[in-house]
Amino acid sequence: MLKHISSESILAMEKQNRVHLVNSLGGFKSVSLVGTTDGEGHTNLAIFSSIFHIGANPPLMGLIFRPTPPERNTYNNILKTGYYTLNHINESIYKQAHQTSARYDKSVSEFEVTGLTPEYKEDFLAPYVSESHVQLGLVFKEKMDIATNDTTLIIGEIVHIYLPEDCIGADGFVCLEKANTVTCSGLDSYHKTVQLDRLSYAKPDKEITSLLSN
Amino acid sequence: MLKHISSESILAMEKQNRVHLVNSLGGFKSVSLVGTTDGEGHTNLAIFSSIFHIGANPPLMGLIFRPTPPERNTYNNILKTGYYTLNHINESIYKQAHQTSARYDKSVSEFEVTGLTPEYKEDFLAPYVSESHVQLGLVFKEKMDIATNDTTLIIGEIVHIYLPEDCIGADGFVCLEKANTVTCSGLDSYHKTVQLDRLSYAKPDKEITSLLSN
Repeated sequence: MLKHISSESILAMEKQNRVHLVNSLGGFKSVSLVGTTDGEGHTNLAIFSSIFHIGANPPLMGLIFRPTPPERNTYNNILKTGYYTLNHINESIYKQAHQTSARYDKSVSEFEVTGLTPEYKEDFLAPYVSESHVQLGLVFKEKMDIATNDTTLIIGEIVHIYLPEDCIGADGFVCLEKANTVTCSGLDSYHKTVQLDRLSYAKPDKEITSLLSN
Repeated sequence: MLKHISSESILAMEKQNRVHLVNSLGGFKSVSLVGTTDGEGHTNLAIFSSIFHIGANPPLMGLIFRPTPPERNTYNNILKTGYYTLNHINESIYKQAHQTSARYDKSVSEFEVTGLTPEYKEDFLAPYVSESHVQLGLVFKEKMDIATNDTTLIIGEIVHIYLPEDCIGADGFVCLEKANTVTCSGLDSYHKTVQLDRLSYAKPDKEITSLLSN
């Protein structure tokens, strides 16, 4: 027997409890560090868990930003420069990654305070996180304002991918466990994963089989 | 040394390889079964991994739909009736959940072919998945067309939550591992998780501590 929580109960909850609850409800989330620069020598690094796949051709990712104020440095830098990086979080850096969510003054770089290393490659303006094993360089494509709650969706195209060579399979699938990528739930919980299976392409009247050769 | 894949290489890839690759790049994803009805006795159940948190007050979730054609039954049902459910996938049902991605004719209900059980509660129009441990009832709020690749973002408000009572902590955090919720990566890989830690709210000049009492 499951517990039922109604709309009225959700809206009547103490604010932080509701934030923890609702952030937990979607399930385990994609979580990455977003690296940017203001183009004037100031870098910014921020953890995001509202990252999602929008399409493969062209390769597009979405990112949700909460309303301003407070000032959103990452958001401003993306709109100003047009470039940002997404860097997967692994078991060795998840505490430093979490620390980037503290509200630092704009003059402070989260790279410096967390000890994570900015890395510049291929003349790309935004810094990657050197300690990250899967690094993506994105170009800003589209901004959409979500009227229902004043958040903003930023869409970018992946133009550079960096990842360990032994993580990519012959069919293009990336083994994120080999790359040690972690996932998160709620606002503050971090998890590693154990693969259950890879399943064959589903068709009507055909049994699903495992793609793993054990 | 990481392997570099440029924009040109991504766009030049064989289509299915690019789909596998790009779907892997965001990291582990929220994955759920979306339950709908056309209001005329036909139910539909479909697996989605483009689910994300948009806000807690009101509690909003986003869902990305690929372009039509082919016909999108889930999409049509949400727009027609205004109601849908999101049902977490657990270790006991992930193969059935994956099977819902097969292209069945509109007259076929994925509930019937997969053996998953539709459940109706509190006069809510859309069916929940009885075998799911975390079930959400949502009301359609907003539809946004994404110009860059003709996909559509559907935003809904969570108006009912059903979950095991022992999964909710005093602060509202939901232990998804206790609920046996799984995550996915790429198009076809399913994973269970192992919690690394829950971390304290990050502040400048304050060390992060564990919220777990071990």
